[in-house]
Amino acid sequence: MSRIERFREKLRESKLDGFVLYNMESSNRSSSWYLSGFSGSFSVLIVTPKGEYIVTDSRYFTQAEIETHFKLIPFNNGDELKDVIQATLAKDGASRVGFEEETISYGLYKRVFSQLGVELEPVDSILKDLRMVKSPEEVEKMRLAVKIAEDALTETFNFIRPGRTEEEVCAALEYEIRKRGGYLAFETIVGSGPRSAIVHGRPSNRTLQEGDFLLIDYGARVDGYNSDITRTYSIGEPSDEMVKVYEVVLKAQTEAKNASKAGVIGSQIHEVAASIIREAGYGDYFGHGLGHSLGMDTHDGQGLSPKNCNPIPAGAVITIEPGIYLPGKFGVRIEDDCYFCESGVEVLTNLDRELKIL
Amino acid sequence: MSRIERFREKLRESKLDGFVLYNMESSNRSSSWYLSGFSGSFSVLIVTPKGEYIVTDSRYFTQAEIETHFKLIPFNNGDELKDVIQATLAKDGASRVGFEEETISYGLYKRVFSQLGVELEPVDSILKDLRMVKSPEEVEKMRLAVKIAEDALTETFNFIRPGRTEEEVCAALEYEIRKRGGYLAFETIVGSGPRSAIVHGRPSNRTLQEGDFLLIDYGARVDGYNSDITRTYSIGEPSDEMVKVYEVVLKAQTEAKNASKAGVIGSQIHEVAASIIREAGYGDYFGHGLGHSLGMDTHDGQGLSPKNCNPIPAGAVITIEPGIYLPGKFGVRIEDDCYFCESGVEVLTNLDRELKIL
Repeated sequence: MSRIERFREKLRESKLDGFVLYNMESSNRSSSWYLSGFSGSFSVLIVTPKGEYIVTDSRYFTQAEIETHFKLIPFNNGDELKDVIQATLAKDGASRVGFEEETISYGLYKRVFSQLGVELEPVDSILKDLRMVKSPEEVEKMRLAVKIAEDALTETFNFIRPGRTEEEVCAALEYEIRKRGGYLAFETIVGSGPRSAIVHGRPSNRTLQEGDFLLIDYGARVDGYNSDITRTYSIGEPSDEMVKVYEVVLKAQTEAKNASKAGVIGSQIHEVAASIIREAGYGDYFGHGLGHSLGMDTHDGQGLSPKNCNPIPAGAVITIEPGIYLPGKFGVRIEDDCYFCESGVEVLTNLDRELKIL
Repeated sequence: MSRIERFREKLRESKLDGFVLYNMESSNRSSSWYLSGFSGSFSVLIVTPKGEYIVTDSRYFTQAEIETHFKLIPFNNGDELKDVIQATLAKDGASRVGFEEETISYGLYKRVFSQLGVELEPVDSILKDLRMVKSPEEVEKMRLAVKIAEDALTETFNFIRPGRTEEEVCAALEYEIRKRGGYLAFETIVGSGPRSAIVHGRPSNRTLQEGDFLLIDYGARVDGYNSDITRTYSIGEPSDEMVKVYEVVLKAQTEAKNASKAGVIGSQIHEVAASIIREAGYGDYFGHGLGHSLGMDTHDGQGLSPKNCNPIPAGAVITIEPGIYLPGKFGVRIEDDCYFCESGVEVLTNLDRELKIL
């Protein structure tokens, strides 16, 4: 069954005969791209009992024609969005219409959605749930996003040494991603020494020194799909404590991967890693969830947080990324992208996980 | 008068005694940063008759203490945002509360804002209008964002030559920005040959050739403030038509700058450039507005579009960027960042504007 057919089936299950998806200045680009194939920054997708339509402006007429089978409704200067949507729904007789309440502003709801003269139903979960389960073609794209990110970091190793700043390392790594045609999946995290203990630290002008841990959390976006990888390296010889903490994190990650497969509850996988870290005496220093769904967004759906009581569906790609962060001293995180299958996970990321000294 | 005092005065003019500003995953980071000084990705700012508060989570406790005088309300696991906001407003006796209807989702409005038990009033224009008028300190930061961007492009000239791809030029330029500690203001546009006629073209793997125009539209963000610059260069000798079109765009830009000062209507300045382009016979090939307000966002408020019937206030920084785009042939755009004063504009950008052959 094609993507749009599966989507229409979900609409029918919710007793809906229409759907409107709004995307302005890329506010909802991933879902619009997923559903229609159109990757531009402005679109309104309209699904009715009789057809699928895309409203966009002259910047995108050619692109829409190439990328999507949705029928183009040109949005010209002076047109009112409300009128265009309303006329399309009415023409095809849509009366119970789904929309996403979390991806439109309250102002837009008042000005446009509440004026459509149809019964509206928020159904944010339909596309979220569909997007969480990846097709083989989607996983192929994610493999490419992983490869470009990994090649870029491997090349950057030649640049990393004591005396470089975090900002310089970050700039070099991002350059290697961009040179290979990748975009950045998110703002790269590069933290060294005590700054590696900041969970979401931006790179600073701090200089790498012998005895530092260097934590790099980064990813590439290729053809709309993201990778998300963390590695922690030692600059020169690590202390005994650094080695010990690293080994605990690596063990937590390995065991969590071994416990992972489709059908297991998200929070249970978190607990596998958390209990190993707790028993090693570092329970207070692992404060975040074990992982998140990854795909066209870096946070693409539910994951391995303590709050997720749902089983992970087959086809999900989820990060597994335990960490220990000792304030003022150092932090360690190791993160891989894992494809959930019936029998276990396939790890899409390939960079070494043994402690590496740069 | 301090920034928060000016803001409170605007609240009083709207007969409001409270205000709530929501910022989640950087959804409203610029305005939160502007009002409070806090630059993190998650905050709820609450202004009451008695004080100013910031709600954020443990990732940001230290950062909030350093960056803002707003009083920290820790948001812990298990807390309900609605309860925290409601209790703070009630404690200080706020009853008529402003909020921004364009920067929160409809879902959030239903779950949180509509449940606060106070009278709500959308006042999106208050922060927009304040942010449009820059203080001397803000203009200083924009000068730095311009300098880093200009130094980066100047360095990149050494790399640009026939045989390089657009993607390579883009990666090199972005690397030079990041090396200097700047972030990217927006997705860099690099278009060569016929692709320079695509108004918002992403860099492709097209190779630069003799006789191409190369259009680069880019900017740096430094300490929260953006620059936004476009230059068009010739790769090798340009044709007569290329020279002619370039001169028309440059004249339109120069005359628009000369006509600009605080108090002039935005659309009138657009018309100065548009009429020069029209009279030269290219009226059909300049389809966008002449410029936009620039600051903590790349589109920071009203600008020089045909639709803006308001006078430009003293202290605004606005781009002036006419262009001519001949489909299938080439495009030219020249863009500077202009600080509007009573007597005219001060141009913050310094790169040459005479046609340069690379």
